[in-house]
Amino acid sequence: MIIKINAKVKPTEDSEKVLNAIKNIFMDIKTEFDENIIFCESKNVSRFKELLRSQAILDAARNVLERNIIGNRTKFYINKQAAYSGLLNFDKDIHGGIKLEFIAEEGEDILKLLKDIAPRTRHGVIIDEDEEDN
Amino acid sequence: MIIKINAKVKPTEDSEKVLNAIKNIFMDIKTEFDENIIFCESKNVSRFKELLRSQAILDAARNVLERNIIGNRTKFYINKQAAYSGLLNFDKDIHGGIKLEFIAEEGEDILKLLKDIAPRTRHGVIIDEDEEDN
Repeated sequence: MIIKINAKVKPTEDSEKVLNAIKNIFMDIKTEFDENIIFCESKNVSRFKELLRSQAILDAARNVLERNIIGNRTKFYINKQAAYSGLLNFDKDIHGGIKLEFIAEEGEDILKLLKDIAPRTRHGVIIDEDEEDN
Repeated sequence: MIIKINAKVKPTEDSEKVLNAIKNIFMDIKTEFDENIIFCESKNVSRFKELLRSQAILDAARNVLERNIIGNRTKFYINKQAAYSGLLNFDKDIHGGIKLEFIAEEGEDILKLLKDIAPRTRHGVIIDEDEEDN
């Protein structure tokens, strides 16, 4: 899976702070600055997954991720100010948010990827969806 | 007249950039930082007046200034991002804006002050309102 990340840097913002917000959520990123936009790419979704679990927001995240699927990818925003504090929040904030795109690669299935990233829970415990389906 | 100015500095913002936005609009400011808020005070409204004239927004400004009078003062917001570019814009922006308070001092009349700051115009030319009233 490829993760594409982009975030605007508003005139009164500090581009390093915006980049740090991104680095709080994604590791191993390649970064490019293009005027007032930061573009990043990563293949490492581990910290994002950890945050969903530690913040106990797996089901809410799954809904957002699935709702925004188009073809082999899903696009959504996370809150830039929350990310700066190391927290995941799926409300696009007043600064425009950080735009994320999770793209399934050749041979991958976007629905399966999202199941792994944000499995369903019951009473806070992760359930085996495939078993439930039977 | 006393001008009180305050602006929040959001986590991804640079406090110096926010201060520069304020300095583009007001000269001779006294500044205090309190955690994530910048408080400033000035008695110099000349650049603000100049900008209203050079941007030809006297009537729009007068409406905003008068609409928000409470007692001897008027409170309103200007756009922080526009201010950073040296422009006056009375739309509170997505960063929360810069909050302004113009306070009439002992012996001053807030309505007269605002007439001087933002006189009415007709076809872009400043008119003498007192004459018009007769």
